Amino acid sequence: DAQNVMKLIIDCDAGVDDAMALIMALDYVRKGKAQVLAVTCVQGNTGLDNVVVNVLRTMNAMDIQVPVYRGAKDPLIGPYIRHGPPFHGEDGLGDAHFDTTPDLSVVSSEHASLAIARLVRDNPDEVTLIATGPLTNVALAIKMDPDFTKLLHSFYIMGGNLNGRGNITTCAEFNFHNDPEAALVTLTESLTPPRMITFDLCISQALFSLDWRKNKLGQKATRQARFQNKIEDTLLKAFEKYYGDYSMWDQVAVAAALNPGQVVTEASSACASVELAGQHTRGQMIIESRLRQDDRKNNVVIVDKIDKTALENMVLDAFD
Amino acid sequence: DAQNVMKLIIDCDAGVDDAMALIMALDYVRKGKAQVLAVTCVQGNTGLDNVVVNVLRTMNAMDIQVPVYRGAKDPLIGPYIRHGPPFHGEDGLGDAHFDTTPDLSVVSSEHASLAIARLVRDNPDEVTLIATGPLTNVALAIKMDPDFTKLLHSFYIMGGNLNGRGNITTCAEFNFHNDPEAALVTLTESLTPPRMITFDLCISQALFSLDWRKNKLGQKATRQARFQNKIEDTLLKAFEKYYGDYSMWDQVAVAAALNPGQVVTEASSACASVELAGQHTRGQMIIESRLRQDDRKNNVVIVDKIDKTALENMVLDAFD
Amino acid sequence: DAQNVMKLIIDCDAGVDDAMALIMALDYVRKGKAQVLAVTCVQGNTGLDNVVVNVLRTMNAMDIQVPVYRGAKDPLIGPYIRHGPPFHGEDGLGDAHFDTTPDLSVVSSEHASLAIARLVRDNPDEVTLIATGPLTNVALAIKMDPDFTKLLHSFYIMGGNLNGRGNITTCAEFNFHNDPEAALVTLTESLTPPRMITFDLCISQALFSLDWRKNKLGQKATRQARFQNKIEDTLLKAFEKYYGDYSMWDQVAVAAALNPGQVVTEASSACASVELAGQHTRGQMIIESRLRQDDRKNNVVIVDKIDKTALENMVLDAFD
Amino acid sequence: DAQNVMKLIIDCDAGVDDAMALIMALDYVRKGKAQVLAVTCVQGNTGLDNVVVNVLRTMNAMDIQVPVYRGAKDPLIGPYIRHGPPFHGEDGLGDAHFDTTPDLSVVSSEHASLAIARLVRDNPDEVTLIATGPLTNVALAIKMDPDFTKLLHSFYIMGGNLNGRGNITTCAEFNFHNDPEAALVTLTESLTPPRMITFDLCISQALFSLDWRKNKLGQKATRQARFQNKIEDTLLKAFEKYYGDYSMWDQVAVAAALNPGQVVTEASSACASVELAGQHTRGQMIIESRLRQDDRKNNVVIVDKIDKTALENMVLDAFD
Ligand SMILES: [Ca+2]
Ligand SMILES: [Ca+2]
Ligand SMILES: [Ca+2]
Ligand SMILES: [Ca+2]
Repeated sequence: DAQNVMKLIIDCDAGVDDAMALIMALDYVRKGKAQVLAVTCVQGNTGLDNVVVNVLRTMNAMDIQVPVYRGAKDPLIGPYIRHGPPFHGEDGLGDAHFDTTPDLSVVSSEHASLAIARLVRDNPDEVTLIATGPLTNVALAIKMDPDFTKLLHSFYIMGGNLNGRGNITTCAEFNFHNDPEAALVTLTESLTPPRMITFDLCISQALFSLDWRKNKLGQKATRQARFQNKIEDTLLKAFEKYYGDYSMWDQVAVAAALNPGQVVTEASSACASVELAGQHTRGQMIIESRLRQDDRKNNVVIVDKIDKTALENMVLDAFD
Repeated sequence: DAQNVMKLIIDCDAGVDDAMALIMALDYVRKGKAQVLAVTCVQGNTGLDNVVVNVLRTMNAMDIQVPVYRGAKDPLIGPYIRHGPPFHGEDGLGDAHFDTTPDLSVVSSEHASLAIARLVRDNPDEVTLIATGPLTNVALAIKMDPDFTKLLHSFYIMGGNLNGRGNITTCAEFNFHNDPEAALVTLTESLTPPRMITFDLCISQALFSLDWRKNKLGQKATRQARFQNKIEDTLLKAFEKYYGDYSMWDQVAVAAALNPGQVVTEASSACASVELAGQHTRGQMIIESRLRQDDRKNNVVIVDKIDKTALENMVLDAFD
Repeated sequence: DAQNVMKLIIDCDAGVDDAMALIMALDYVRKGKAQVLAVTCVQGNTGLDNVVVNVLRTMNAMDIQVPVYRGAKDPLIGPYIRHGPPFHGEDGLGDAHFDTTPDLSVVSSEHASLAIARLVRDNPDEVTLIATGPLTNVALAIKMDPDFTKLLHSFYIMGGNLNGRGNITTCAEFNFHNDPEAALVTLTESLTPPRMITFDLCISQALFSLDWRKNKLGQKATRQARFQNKIEDTLLKAFEKYYGDYSMWDQVAVAAALNPGQVVTEASSACASVELAGQHTRGQMIIESRLRQDDRKNNVVIVDKIDKTALENMVLDAFD
Repeated sequence: DAQNVMKLIIDCDAGVDDAMALIMALDYVRKGKAQVLAVTCVQGNTGLDNVVVNVLRTMNAMDIQVPVYRGAKDPLIGPYIRHGPPFHGEDGLGDAHFDTTPDLSVVSSEHASLAIARLVRDNPDEVTLIATGPLTNVALAIKMDPDFTKLLHSFYIMGGNLNGRGNITTCAEFNFHNDPEAALVTLTESLTPPRMITFDLCISQALFSLDWRKNKLGQKATRQARFQNKIEDTLLKAFEKYYGDYSMWDQVAVAAALNPGQVVTEASSACASVELAGQHTRGQMIIESRLRQDDRKNNVVIVDKIDKTALENMVLDAFD
C-alpha cells in the first residue's frame, strides 16, 4: 500500500557506516517499505568525489539504483580538510580494492541542496530526511529555501554530542566539528525539529562486540555482506586496536528513521545550539539544561534510548 | 556597439546610497553604455521585503525596468537584525511617503544567488558584479556553484575596512559586520579577486560638502533627483548633525565599476581575510601587511585612490 | 598529637555554602583536628568587602578566630560583576539582618595571595588548600610564586563541570564562569593536582531533602545553627521554589578535604583545561576523554563519588 | 636640584632596543637628571633569566648599578613562548659572545610587581613608569594593588597598534601579542592613563637610515657604544635584509618619558582596549573612533607625533 511506503532522502558522506546505513535503507526499498527519493552527497569522511563513488558502489552492492546528487565539496566556511584518524581510509571505504569504477553519468546535475528542498516541496509532509554526514547540504538547502523544512514528515540527524565530549576534538563530534556553522543553521532554523542521534547515544547504546561483528554479521554471505566486510576491514582493525568494541553510528539514525516505533524507546525535547568560537569547544553541541529557564524554546528532539535488539535485527536483516 | 556595452549584476540592500548607485548604473543603461542583467536583493540596510520594494521604486524613478531577484532574507548565520543608526530609516529609503506600491509580480522567482551564477555562466568573461550590500547572496552563489566566479569580467565590493576602524562597531564596517561569514567566503573563495571599495576609502576620498549636496546636486529637477532628495532627507539631517559632510559609499563602487579608467587612480593587491571571532573585531577585514611574508597569496585588489571629480561628474550626470 | 592536626587554608567567597563549609572546618578546629592557617577572601558570590564581613560573622558564630586576609576584588580580567540569581542575597549572606558589625581591624594587611604562598612555604608539605570561590587569589598566588604549589599537602577545589552543563551560564559553573582565566591558570599551573569537587558531583550526590534541611539540620539549636538558618532563609525559599531539593556545594569540598578517607570513595585522574573563548562555553571545564590520547598529561583528580552519609554526619556534627 | 631629578621605573624584556633605551635612561642618571628606582625584568624578547642577565650586562656597559628585580617568567595565561623572528637572538642580546657572567646576587629578592607598587607608594606622584616589554609585571602589580597607579607621575608604554596591523601576527604588535590579558588589564585598570608609543608611531616616525646607524651612531667609541654595536649586529643584518631601515622602538618610549616637552609634539586621548579572542586579532589594540560615541571614556594618551631630531640627539648623547 503506497501510503505505507516511506519516502526518504539520505544525505551522507559515505563513509563505511554511511554505507551500512544505506544498505539498511535499501533493504527497506527491496521490501517495498520505503522509497529513496534521493541520496545526496556531502564532503565529510572523505572528499565529495569519493563520496559520490562510494554511494554508487554501495547501491551497486545492493543492486538497487536510486537518484544520486552531488552537494557541497567544502564546509560553509573554509576548505575541506580530511580530519581525524583514518578509520574510513583515504577514500572513505577503507581503501579497499575494487575492479570497476561506477558510472558517474547516473548522478543528477541538480545541486543536492536544491534537490532536497524541491523533493520535499513535491512531497509535502511525506519525506523523512536522514542526515548522516556534516550538515552543509542541509544548511544550504535551508539558506536557499528557508521554509521547506516545515514540509518534512520527519528529520533525523546523526551528529552532535550531549556532554561536551567529542571524538574528533576534545569537545566536538565529527559531523558537527566538520561544519559547525552548518550544524548551527540546521538546528536553529529547521522548522521541523530534528531528532538527534548523538555521539553519546551511539557510544553507549549502539556498541556490539567485535565477535558479533565478525562471527554473526560477518558470516553473512550475500553480496552486500561481502561488500561491507571488505570496506570495513580497516575500521575493524582500528576498533580492535583502540576500543575493543564495534560501534554503530549512521546505522542508528537510519534504523530510528525507518522504524521509530521499535527503535526509539525514549526521546526528549531540548533547546540546542552549536558553539562556533572556542579554542576547545568549536563544534560542540550546546544543550540548555539549567532549571528556571522556563521561556526556552525547544528546537530538537534528543533520542535518549534505543532498543538495541531492534537495531541489531534490522542490521542483520539488511545483510540477508 | 554591443561589444562596448557593459553587462552588470548589482547585488544590493537598498538603502539610500544603493538607490543613488543604482540610478548611476541606470544612467549608463539609458545612455546605451551598460546593460543590467539583474538587480539582486539582499537583506542589509533594511529587511529583504523592503529592499525589493526599494529597488523597484528606484527603477521606477528612472523609468527603466531591469530584472529583479530576491535573495537572502538572513545572514548566513543567525537571523536578520537591523543594525545601527537609522540613517536609512526603518524601510531603507528614509521612511519617505509614497502614494503607490510597486508591482511585485515583476520580481523573478529564481533565487538571486542562482541567478547570479547562471547569468555569469551565460555571459562568460563579460559580467561585472557589483556588491553594495552584505555578501550573503554572493557567498551563497559561490557555495552553490564554486567555479562561476572565474568567469566574471570584474567584481567590485563596497565593504570592509583597512585599519580596524569601523562605522557600525568599533572595528567593523556595516556590510562586513552584517554577515562576516559571507564576507570571508567571498574574499577567500572568489576566483576573480574583488576590487574593494572600503570604508577607509569612502570616508577619506568620497566626502562632499552638504552645501554641494543641497545646492548643486539637490537643485536638479529631474524625476530621479526629486526621488533621491525625498529618500535622503532623513540621512542628510543625520549627516548634518553628526558629521558635517556628505559621504558617498555604494556610489563609489558603481562609479568605479562603470568607469574604472577614470575613477580608480590607484589600486594595489592585498591578502585579505575577515575576522569571525573576536569580542571587538568580528567582521573586521584583515590585511596582511607584515614584511617578510613573501609567500602570501593576494586575493583582493584594494582601491587606494579615486578621482573625486570623475565620481562627482558621474553622479551629477545621473541626475540630469 | 600535633602531627595529626591538619593545616588548612580556606580561600572562599562567602556565600552561605562557604559559611557552612567554614563552620565545618572550624568544628574540626574546636575538636583539635585541624588548624586554619588562614581564611583568604575573594570576590565571587558577593563583593570582596562583603565576603570579609561574612567570614568574620561566620567565625563569630563559632566563636573561633583564625587569621583572615583580603584578596582580589575583581577577576583577573575585567571588573567584578555580581552574577546570577540572588540565592546568596546582595550581601552574600541572604541579606539577613545583623545587629552588629564585625571588627575589621583583625583582618591582616598582607594580600591573600601572598599569604597563601608564604604559609605554604612556611609549612612545606603540610598545608591543605581548599578553594570554594573563584580562583582569582589562587591564580595570583601562582603568578607571584609559581613553585609554591609543589609544597602543598593537598588541594581541593569546588568548581568546574564535567559535561558542559552549567548553573550560571548554559555551559559554565559559577566559580569557573566568574574567573575563567584564573581557573585555567590554576588547573594548568598548579604543581599539586587539585582534587575537583565539580558541579556534576554536587548536583547528583550531595542532594538532601528540604525536609532534612529544615527538620533535621534545621532543628539544631546551637549558635552556629541559628546563624546558618538565618542566612540560609532566602536560599531555602529559592531551593523550594525552583528545585525541591537542598544541594550542598562548598560543604562537599571541605568535607572531602577534612576527611578524604571517608568522604571520597572514588576519584580518577584527568587532563583538564578551561575554555576562555566561546559564545556559549566560556568558563566550561574541558575534559579530555578521547581514546587514543596516550600522551595526555593528567593534571587534576576528579572526585567521582562521595559517601553521602559521611558528608551528612560531618554537617550534623558541625552544628552540634 | 633634587626636585628636578626624575624618578624612573623601567619595566623591560631586554632585548637590544630595551638595552639602548636603558642606556639612554642611565645617561640621564650619570648627568644627574634622573634616578632609576628599579629596572624590573619581564619575559618577552627572551626568557626571564636571560632578561635579568641582559639588564645587568647593559648596566655594566654604562658602569652604573641600579636596583634590579625579577618579575614574571610567563604571560598571565599560558607558558612563555619565544615568538617571532630572531632579531634579538636566542638570548635577547643578539647571541653576542661575552667573556664574563654578571653577578646575579645583586638582583633583589622582592617580586618585580610588588617592587613597582611599593616604590610608587613610597614616592607618591613622583615616579615615571616606563614599560618596554609585555605588560605582565605591570598587570600583576595592578592586580595585587589596584590603586597604586593613581600615584604615578606618568606612565609610558611601548606597545600596541592603532590600525590593526601587526609586526608579530597580522594584527598584533609584539608586546601586546605576548600577553594580551596583561595589556588589557593595564589599559583598562591603570588609574593614570598610559601614554602609548605604538607600533604605528615607531615604524613611521622613528626610522633612521642604516647608514646613520652604522656611520654616525656606530662610530662612537665609548664602552656602551661598543656594547650596543656588538649586541645589535644580528639585528642590523636582519634590518638590512628585510627592511632597509633602522627603526627604534623602546628608545622612543624612554626618550618620550625622559624629555616629553621636546620629544612628544602631538598626543591625543583615546578610548582603547585589547582584543583577547579573534583568530587573527588576538592582541590587537582596539581604538574607538566612531563618531557619535560621546559617552566614551578615554583611558590612554596616544603619542601621535615625535620630534625625531630630539630623539636622535638623545640617542647620540647617550653613547658619548
Ligand atoms: Ca557519516
Ligand atoms: Ca548598501
Ligand atoms: Ca563559594
Ligand atoms: Ca622591549
